[in-house]
Amino acid sequence: MKIACLGTGSWGFCLAYLLAGKGFDTVSWTTKAALAHQLKEKREHPFFPGLTAPPNMHFTTDITAVLDKADLIMESVTSAGIRPVFAKLAENGCPRIPIVITSKGIEQNTGLVLPDVILEVIGEEYKPFIGCVSGPSFAQDVVKGLPTSVVASSYSSEVMSFVCDTFTTPVFRVYPNSDLRGVAFGGALKNIIAIACGISDGLALGSSSRAALMTRGLHEIRKLAVSCGCFADTLNGLSGMGDFVLTCNSIMSRNFKFGYLLAQGMSTQEAQTNIGMVVEGAYTCVSALQLSKKNDIPMPISETVFKIIYEAMPPMEAVKALMQRTIKEEHL
Amino acid sequence: MKIACLGTGSWGFCLAYLLAGKGFDTVSWTTKAALAHQLKEKREHPFFPGLTAPPNMHFTTDITAVLDKADLIMESVTSAGIRPVFAKLAENGCPRIPIVITSKGIEQNTGLVLPDVILEVIGEEYKPFIGCVSGPSFAQDVVKGLPTSVVASSYSSEVMSFVCDTFTTPVFRVYPNSDLRGVAFGGALKNIIAIACGISDGLALGSSSRAALMTRGLHEIRKLAVSCGCFADTLNGLSGMGDFVLTCNSIMSRNFKFGYLLAQGMSTQEAQTNIGMVVEGAYTCVSALQLSKKNDIPMPISETVFKIIYEAMPPMEAVKALMQRTIKEEHL
Repeated sequence: MKIACLGTGSWGFCLAYLLAGKGFDTVSWTTKAALAHQLKEKREHPFFPGLTAPPNMHFTTDITAVLDKADLIMESVTSAGIRPVFAKLAENGCPRIPIVITSKGIEQNTGLVLPDVILEVIGEEYKPFIGCVSGPSFAQDVVKGLPTSVVASSYSSEVMSFVCDTFTTPVFRVYPNSDLRGVAFGGALKNIIAIACGISDGLALGSSSRAALMTRGLHEIRKLAVSCGCFADTLNGLSGMGDFVLTCNSIMSRNFKFGYLLAQGMSTQEAQTNIGMVVEGAYTCVSALQLSKKNDIPMPISETVFKIIYEAMPPMEAVKALMQRTIKEEHL
Repeated sequence: MKIACLGTGSWGFCLAYLLAGKGFDTVSWTTKAALAHQLKEKREHPFFPGLTAPPNMHFTTDITAVLDKADLIMESVTSAGIRPVFAKLAENGCPRIPIVITSKGIEQNTGLVLPDVILEVIGEEYKPFIGCVSGPSFAQDVVKGLPTSVVASSYSSEVMSFVCDTFTTPVFRVYPNSDLRGVAFGGALKNIIAIACGISDGLALGSSSRAALMTRGLHEIRKLAVSCGCFADTLNGLSGMGDFVLTCNSIMSRNFKFGYLLAQGMSTQEAQTNIGMVVEGAYTCVSALQLSKKNDIPMPISETVFKIIYEAMPPMEAVKALMQRTIKEEHL
């Protein structure tokens, strides 16, 4: 089997390494010529010093070549990169093979989850081919062979099984879950709550406060997801709660760090500059609130994050306002 | 209002301090004469140096005196202490006033959750008076006035509202939840998963592995709870997921630490001795597995914890066996 891997960031490289370790031929595509050269020649990725890419891992900057004789496409570009990359694939006619999304996010401006962005670009007839892999997983843990559990999903049960079989290893457990939109939703919206948890930690509000933010944050996102037709159980699973727990506890997450810096007194612009990379949660937050208004789902935590980012509301004042809200029954 | 507080451990003292801060008179009962003396004279609890008990906090070693003119009983003894303490109260006729449980656990040997232990001792006719407060909360965070969110529950909606009103402060948010058994279940069974997470960290399996254990651990406990008539939503709330997230991430939790020591190669006996206090999860695990057999709910993580504690299964071998289980659909 030959797998076309789009993107050579840490997660894309890590999954290609995992697949190559199972004996599949992988070809990873990147726009970065210097990185492709280094990967080909030195067989080492700058994010994983000491790890040697096996001979069945190939690298290219040619997006047409990457698809040649491929049995599966694995996508690991940024959420902003999804649209242009698939537009490029569509130019030459995208092959009818499974497409596994491993990025997470919501597209800026359109508010679409990534499977919907891809379908908009390559056409609704590809719906049965779309799948994804998502869940709590740090690339650095996975390349070390540490036990990891994720979910695979697809609009078609055949592709779902195929993705599970393709990615499963003795230490990388892949659970099938047929709720693709729910899986995409949790992975994207967790970044808002990661920002909230970063703000809480930046204000030194303690771990009890962070645990409550995660729980009530998942609560409001689960309600929004259910109002969009997703299953509550998906949000309570690995791609929802699991990923929340991992991201919201980690200063390694740039969304968490962004919130932390805001709480330390930086402006939104300063915190963005300090991080130097896209902070997905800052955009996701805008889309989530648009949806929450449309579907009439109150999202107090996401709203608070929005006010801090876009209306320069002082974080401590925002926390106080959040704590003064009228309390309803817990599950409402 | 006068509140009778049973127990002067860190949580019991912390909540009495919170209630006294609202202007209520509190009388805290302890069997420890030296501690009672210190609290009365120095107005300081050894766990909270620098914190002064206000004049409306009272302390006694006389269990009859503590109930005199009380409007509410707040219980914060160990789960093993619940039965003898309430037997003592019953001797003189327990007053018909709300009883708020703030301990968590399952009684050894009987496998009963704490509300059921109390009712067995003082009589089923007290059912409408039983309530509880539970959720992610470190006493050290709460006494500092850091934002905390918990749930209050009761078999009667009047007592539930009364407990919410009594405990709520501007920074201590209390959400009503009418599923008392579900609240008790989550608080008790989380300790099994805390042990599992400690084992995982002790084996240096990484944060992805821990996040998966928390998610799949909550999954099996939620299924068991639902099979016992509890609501899934309760387990996904503050007293379930919230408390899981707090306890399973913290080496400060003795259950987590117990698992950590087992993974470092200590025997069960050595780890128990090292900790020097009751490790609730080690007992809860036995009761949970009895229930899981009775209700036919597979609990692979709890079973693995059991094998490591009671059958001296080497932790790494146990993890491997866990990873080799057949994978089912995620929500099943």
